[in-house]
Amino acid sequence: MIRLYNGKVLALNGDTEIEDKELWIQDSMILYAGPPQTDHPAFDREIDLRGDLVMPGFKNAHAHSAMTFLRSFADDLPLQTWLYDKVFPLEAKLTPDDVYALTKLAILEYLAGGITAAFDMYYKRDAFCQAAIDCGFRMVLNGALAKWDDWSVGEMDTIKYNMLHPLISYIPGIHAEYTASLELLMFMGELVHEHKKPFFTHNSETAKEVEECIERYGLTPTALYEEYGLFDYGGGGFHCTHLSSDDMDIFRRRGLWAVTCPASNAKLASGIAPVAEMMRRGINLAIGTDGPASNNALNMFREMYLVTVLQKIREKDAAVCDAARVLEMACSGGARAMGLPDCDCIAAGKTADLVALDLHRPNMYPVHNTVKNIVYSGSNDNVRMTMVNGKILYEDGVFHVGESAEDIYARAQAVTDRLCRG
Amino acid sequence: MIRLYNGKVLALNGDTEIEDKELWIQDSMILYAGPPQTDHPAFDREIDLRGDLVMPGFKNAHAHSAMTFLRSFADDLPLQTWLYDKVFPLEAKLTPDDVYALTKLAILEYLAGGITAAFDMYYKRDAFCQAAIDCGFRMVLNGALAKWDDWSVGEMDTIKYNMLHPLISYIPGIHAEYTASLELLMFMGELVHEHKKPFFTHNSETAKEVEECIERYGLTPTALYEEYGLFDYGGGGFHCTHLSSDDMDIFRRRGLWAVTCPASNAKLASGIAPVAEMMRRGINLAIGTDGPASNNALNMFREMYLVTVLQKIREKDAAVCDAARVLEMACSGGARAMGLPDCDCIAAGKTADLVALDLHRPNMYPVHNTVKNIVYSGSNDNVRMTMVNGKILYEDGVFHVGESAEDIYARAQAVTDRLCRG
Repeated sequence: MIRLYNGKVLALNGDTEIEDKELWIQDSMILYAGPPQTDHPAFDREIDLRGDLVMPGFKNAHAHSAMTFLRSFADDLPLQTWLYDKVFPLEAKLTPDDVYALTKLAILEYLAGGITAAFDMYYKRDAFCQAAIDCGFRMVLNGALAKWDDWSVGEMDTIKYNMLHPLISYIPGIHAEYTASLELLMFMGELVHEHKKPFFTHNSETAKEVEECIERYGLTPTALYEEYGLFDYGGGGFHCTHLSSDDMDIFRRRGLWAVTCPASNAKLASGIAPVAEMMRRGINLAIGTDGPASNNALNMFREMYLVTVLQKIREKDAAVCDAARVLEMACSGGARAMGLPDCDCIAAGKTADLVALDLHRPNMYPVHNTVKNIVYSGSNDNVRMTMVNGKILYEDGVFHVGESAEDIYARAQAVTDRLCRG
Repeated sequence: MIRLYNGKVLALNGDTEIEDKELWIQDSMILYAGPPQTDHPAFDREIDLRGDLVMPGFKNAHAHSAMTFLRSFADDLPLQTWLYDKVFPLEAKLTPDDVYALTKLAILEYLAGGITAAFDMYYKRDAFCQAAIDCGFRMVLNGALAKWDDWSVGEMDTIKYNMLHPLISYIPGIHAEYTASLELLMFMGELVHEHKKPFFTHNSETAKEVEECIERYGLTPTALYEEYGLFDYGGGGFHCTHLSSDDMDIFRRRGLWAVTCPASNAKLASGIAPVAEMMRRGINLAIGTDGPASNNALNMFREMYLVTVLQKIREKDAAVCDAARVLEMACSGGARAMGLPDCDCIAAGKTADLVALDLHRPNMYPVHNTVKNIVYSGSNDNVRMTMVNGKILYEDGVFHVGESAEDIYARAQAVTDRLCRG
């Protein structure tokens, strides 16, 4: 059992209060979260937090982790050009071993930034699951079927990846409307009904995507999915940059999750999502980095800051998009969007997916409001420790993922060299 | 003499090439930058860079460092409300000792983020100079006169702070047009002519500032300053969020520096400066964080990222605002704007104001383009060492500024508690 003591806890259990508490972690579970107790069991390890803060880990609610190989490779291109001319041809060359090595690199970046789970849409699923399992990292897979795929995979994967390992789960989905067909939507409708599962996909990422969908079907992507019953068991959309008022009504009514990806949307010039408007309408929100090819970092501090300040620009109002709500989106919101209700807050009985933030750094002083300090000033150098499923995977700058960081870097670099320069 | 060897150097001496070089630092100067030599003098310390990167330090070309006491205190308000209702009343209570303590906190944050100099506009100048001198940090003061000040101070300070200490220099200026009078502008005109000095001020930060100036004088702030001869010896403006085409012509013709502050402009909903347009027009550019009350971090990685992605949003074009140019703005551009031509690049004879970036972190892999990795993915946890004037002030997470970080934190917190809750 691990004891974390002499620290503060931001539980995110319905509010953003910070309290002096200690935590006991037994296997994967938080056994106790409360005031120090004199009568306690024997601990395997006791960590003195020295006044630092423990909170739920960040959840990266939209990612293509293995795309690390394209970081800083094809920047400064519009989305469609970037996707069809640069990304797809190189992705076609990826082997499962490549995906394994590239995903491990992304996992190191997640851990260094306090991210404890990713909602990942990618191919060679066995390989990236194995990378997560070998590192001890939590991964939720999204289906990402396209019209040219063998759709029966979606059926099999829904069963297989929800039974594979405690760190792995699966939510059905398609890649996007523009890589789908009506037949695929019908197939997905049957699949979500049969398995009573939510449905996620890239949704309204660019204005072009929405316009072309309306040309094709007379409906926005959101209305199209609704029409085909894909949201009958919930779900949501990645990006949601260009939702209409009617789309937002569907999101609100269905309790869908809009996963905003502000850095990617900005860098690819896709636009600024109507996050503040969605907040006012009570729509469920989470935050994703998107893939490292379009961001280029996998850094939730950056995303949280962008969520807030881009809304202030979008609405020309410095008062919109409160920092506390944004922190909840990044931690608890992501967990609920990803079907991980046990990872959403810090309380006895919850899963121990958490991060310890070093408050003894210049960007955390003075202490007027620690939540605002985290959202408006936080940085990777505040991450002291990252724990997934009760295991410490990152601590004081060092990774504990079963393989050395240097070996992971070297393997990812070799794969990249072969793919991009071979 | 300090030797930095076994590393890479991004000299920023006219290009963004990265070369295998070693550096010898003698006192405050780079004595040698080139291939390893077998015949060399005795070194006091040899630092094995293990393949990491040395580059010129970031220059924070617009700051109000002592405003750390307002971090996370009055967020989410529009600029004028924020300034008149929150900032000015509390600032009136500041003592020199307060400014000293609060500036030291900002300096720690600068060093942790690889920033080696700040262009600072604040009051109680003796106190914040002393903080810089005691820490070994480089500070360029900006005049910041307002109509209610004793203007003779501007005359005396121009002489005094340019002779005080090698780490300190002074450039005349006013706070802003909306806190000035025509008499003050006339006075400043005489001052810059007499001392042949450049002139800097907050310029066109908000649309309101520009509109009210036009109402008062029939001129934009830039045209007004030009009319009064304030740019006859160069200079520039902080923010430059709302420059007209004619304003940009003046900037171009005069060789003025536009110091963009993207985080502050976004957070206060002031807008997005026309940085890409200024680049196309060949206007000199540098980057500032503004004060910690409006940002809230003092982090050049964040600013660089925001400069690039906000331009992509502003122009709806993912191809604008090249990362290499942005890195030059943050390092060399800032140095030249601040009158520090010896701190602009890494070469023999230049001043040793530099930063070592840890490339052995997940966000720096794979290596397609290290410059893009720094601008699009870099974070404070990549800062391995920060050197100012030949002295190592930050290394491996530890500060070497003559006082412990914990003592600086405690003093800044005590000052803040007295000011904001006293």
